[in-house]
Amino acid sequence: MDSRILAFVDGNLQTKWDELLARTREIYDLNAIGALMSWDQSTYMPPKGGTLRGRQLALMEQLAHERRTDPALGRLLDDLQPYAESLAPDDDRAAILREVRRSYERAVRIPASFASAFAKHTSESFMVWIEARPANNFAAVQPYLQKTLDMSRQMSQFLGTSGHLADPLIDFADRGFTVAELRPLLATLSVALTSLVKQIGERPQVDNSVLHHFYPKASQLAYGEQVARAIGYDFQRGRQDETHHPFMIKFGYDDVRITTRVDEYDLGNALFGTLHEAGHALYELGIDPAYASTVLDSGTSSGVHESQSRLWENIVGRSAAFWQHAFPRLQTAFPEQLAGVSAEAFYHAVNRVAPSLIRTEADEVTYNLHVIIRFGLELELLEGKLAIADLPEAWHARYSEALGVRAPTDVDGILQDVHWYGGPIGGSFQGYTLGNIMAAQFYAAALAAHPGIEAEIGRGEFSTLHSWLHENIYRHGAKYAPGDLLMRATGQPLTVKPYLEYLCAKFSGIYGTLTIDRPAAGIQSA
Amino acid sequence: MDSRILAFVDGNLQTKWDELLARTREIYDLNAIGALMSWDQSTYMPPKGGTLRGRQLALMEQLAHERRTDPALGRLLDDLQPYAESLAPDDDRAAILREVRRSYERAVRIPASFASAFAKHTSESFMVWIEARPANNFAAVQPYLQKTLDMSRQMSQFLGTSGHLADPLIDFADRGFTVAELRPLLATLSVALTSLVKQIGERPQVDNSVLHHFYPKASQLAYGEQVARAIGYDFQRGRQDETHHPFMIKFGYDDVRITTRVDEYDLGNALFGTLHEAGHALYELGIDPAYASTVLDSGTSSGVHESQSRLWENIVGRSAAFWQHAFPRLQTAFPEQLAGVSAEAFYHAVNRVAPSLIRTEADEVTYNLHVIIRFGLELELLEGKLAIADLPEAWHARYSEALGVRAPTDVDGILQDVHWYGGPIGGSFQGYTLGNIMAAQFYAAALAAHPGIEAEIGRGEFSTLHSWLHENIYRHGAKYAPGDLLMRATGQPLTVKPYLEYLCAKFSGIYGTLTIDRPAAGIQSA
Repeated sequence: MDSRILAFVDGNLQTKWDELLARTREIYDLNAIGALMSWDQSTYMPPKGGTLRGRQLALMEQLAHERRTDPALGRLLDDLQPYAESLAPDDDRAAILREVRRSYERAVRIPASFASAFAKHTSESFMVWIEARPANNFAAVQPYLQKTLDMSRQMSQFLGTSGHLADPLIDFADRGFTVAELRPLLATLSVALTSLVKQIGERPQVDNSVLHHFYPKASQLAYGEQVARAIGYDFQRGRQDETHHPFMIKFGYDDVRITTRVDEYDLGNALFGTLHEAGHALYELGIDPAYASTVLDSGTSSGVHESQSRLWENIVGRSAAFWQHAFPRLQTAFPEQLAGVSAEAFYHAVNRVAPSLIRTEADEVTYNLHVIIRFGLELELLEGKLAIADLPEAWHARYSEALGVRAPTDVDGILQDVHWYGGPIGGSFQGYTLGNIMAAQFYAAALAAHPGIEAEIGRGEFSTLHSWLHENIYRHGAKYAPGDLLMRATGQPLTVKPYLEYLCAKFSGIYGTLTIDRPAAGIQSA
Repeated sequence: MDSRILAFVDGNLQTKWDELLARTREIYDLNAIGALMSWDQSTYMPPKGGTLRGRQLALMEQLAHERRTDPALGRLLDDLQPYAESLAPDDDRAAILREVRRSYERAVRIPASFASAFAKHTSESFMVWIEARPANNFAAVQPYLQKTLDMSRQMSQFLGTSGHLADPLIDFADRGFTVAELRPLLATLSVALTSLVKQIGERPQVDNSVLHHFYPKASQLAYGEQVARAIGYDFQRGRQDETHHPFMIKFGYDDVRITTRVDEYDLGNALFGTLHEAGHALYELGIDPAYASTVLDSGTSSGVHESQSRLWENIVGRSAAFWQHAFPRLQTAFPEQLAGVSAEAFYHAVNRVAPSLIRTEADEVTYNLHVIIRFGLELELLEGKLAIADLPEAWHARYSEALGVRAPTDVDGILQDVHWYGGPIGGSFQGYTLGNIMAAQFYAAALAAHPGIEAEIGRGEFSTLHSWLHENIYRHGAKYAPGDLLMRATGQPLTVKPYLEYLCAKFSGIYGTLTIDRPAAGIQSA
């Protein structure tokens, strides 16, 4: 924290405040060091280094856990409580004290023995999934999933809820959101998207074969870095490496890295992956440096984070304006592969809509249907309405119903996503769809404030958009809960209206005029 | 530790033993995690990540220091002392208890405030040197060097010595060695090497221009990895990356990495650097897995470590037998650059002897003269016979006298090596020369046991040599002090005889018959 948020008259308070910051900074650094070890494990670690790395990660987690639940931290918070109450709610110090307390109270509610048993279980479960997925072996993961479900329920009970068992787990990722609010929102969205998918399915399909020529890896990586740089990703404070699953990871204010995956026969894979991860990174890199290494030095929720990645990946990166400027440059990088292709044809190709089996590869219209299936399954599992043994078939049934496709095996079915194998069942997926909805809501607000943004994008300039995002989202870090941030930035609570309008307008331009069954104007989240 | 070294009858002792291993393993892991952060800092960290990384490293060091000096560790050692005394000196458990005690007693002798002040000072001093070196600015580093000298003296006094002030600092890197022993050894070596350099200087010079064609980086790296693999470096348990200064670094039994530097106009740089670092890595990778993460899980001294890197780099990697097999393969990798060159001409080129300014680039004959200059300067500084202000000129004078060369500026003079800018003055250099001497002594013993080793090398096979090194050196880790290890492996205390014989024979083959002024047979170290 810099000095401007330090103006105590009481020296004793100052000492306690300094101690609070020192303690939370140490927790921050231990987490960051663990993150570096995970990054290394995914990027460069020799194949046999895993056992050792597991032990080193467990040590960092143990040291961080001891500090997160240290009763001395609780006493400090109690001592500072009268001070916290004397501050305006919007004060940075008030936000820090509020967030430290929230994290402390959550941490102490989970018994240490349970936390370590759960970490051990999910780590084992993950390793079993790694082997089971390529082998299409649901039986191998089934007992692990059952234990994960049992422990997820226990965790929810430790955290305490008067609502749905999933609520505390959802709150962990997307604070403030509940099943009661999400269920109708997602139901409405599902109806609208299903209608769009159906209408598009009746139109002539877009040809995207141009994306599947041979695109050499080195050129793809170089072009991706150029695009990331263009939208503002600072390679002095970050870097890009290759991993099996792309991710963004932060070690602190000046070290926020991204990774990508290259498929030499799918140009979109690395390109949009890079835009996505760079979007996450722009958020973290844009947090007020005064918050560096405090509890405010991270994105505020899973949904808001995803809104920033999807905004750059889809709303910007898959827009006609973007390719108007970018396509000639892409043609320079791949002259043979893109010879004779128009910017418009390329724009259509990267926006092809078609039901598919894999969430992470889904287009903008069908994507949320994948998420909604998972969200529904999570709730039914927690409610006891669906048994783990019935999960593979339930997966297939929902896909058939919602998207009209059925995976030939469980590999692309219940074994598809890592989430339930490496973490709790509950709260894992809603952030993706919240992110898509919020991205459109934020972008509409930015456009309303600066109508010239799209023209700028058409010239390969992003600074007005970037500044708006920085001012309204990035710099605040975790200071505001997602609902408050949305209200401040857009003047509205969560609403799917801008998102459905965006989809309808964009894909009408590609597939011909589309309509949305029900007016979405009233669908809001308080 | 595996079960075979756990055979207590007393359950209480077993508990204490387990606690000792758990405590030392935690220290080991904290050090390893710090090492990973340093590795990242040298390889992939974004340019602006340094401040954050410094803080993270300091946290790891603080946590390790607390544990190294924990009085509870001292009490455990005291409780286990009767048990330690009941064991045969050669017992693994006895060695562990001895080494934990040595490290604990050294750690507690240095006051925590001094240790942290010294770490802070050398970190600052290093940063100043980084800027001062390219700027040829000795004045900038002078006050830092002065403080380093003062603190090195203090550190020596904390550690306690009845001999030379340098002795505790030398002991830290090369346990058991003292100034009293090293001074005559190095003096004798100096006379012999100076004579060899003089004789060679009077012979027709070798042409090494073939090394300075254009050798593309990617091909150099690929060839280097092939060579590292051939001598036994396991890429399942390690990897090679590029750094400004090459190094070997260990994070634990199954993760030992090396780095290299490529100069596209100097083929020898990366190639011999890789052999050197892979030699260090083979040692660490060969330590008995039963010692994993204990105090025995590291090379036993700076000198023995250097003996393993120099053995592979020079005795093997710069031998005629090696190139007999390797040269045709190198020609395949670089067909144009090496067209019409014979294996013999190449062997001569990589063994060119000529006085030069830079230690790390020096040939086998002049290399130790660089070390001896530094060793002498360290002693005089500690003794107060030489002032920091006079150091730049003293450097030039010694180089003129010993090698007949004088650096045009301090850049390649007193500012050349990092050692005194990032650590104490004293104990920094002797390990390099001890390593060269020991390498020849070990190799002679291996040859005596297995006369077919050279013929194997000529066929590109290294398993007999590797096995001998594994059996006699690698697997023991830090169990034996260097003097004991030498005696066990070679049946002799330290002696320069094999080294001088090796140099004389090898370079007679290249430059014509050479003689050594004084018989070296009697020069031994007890």
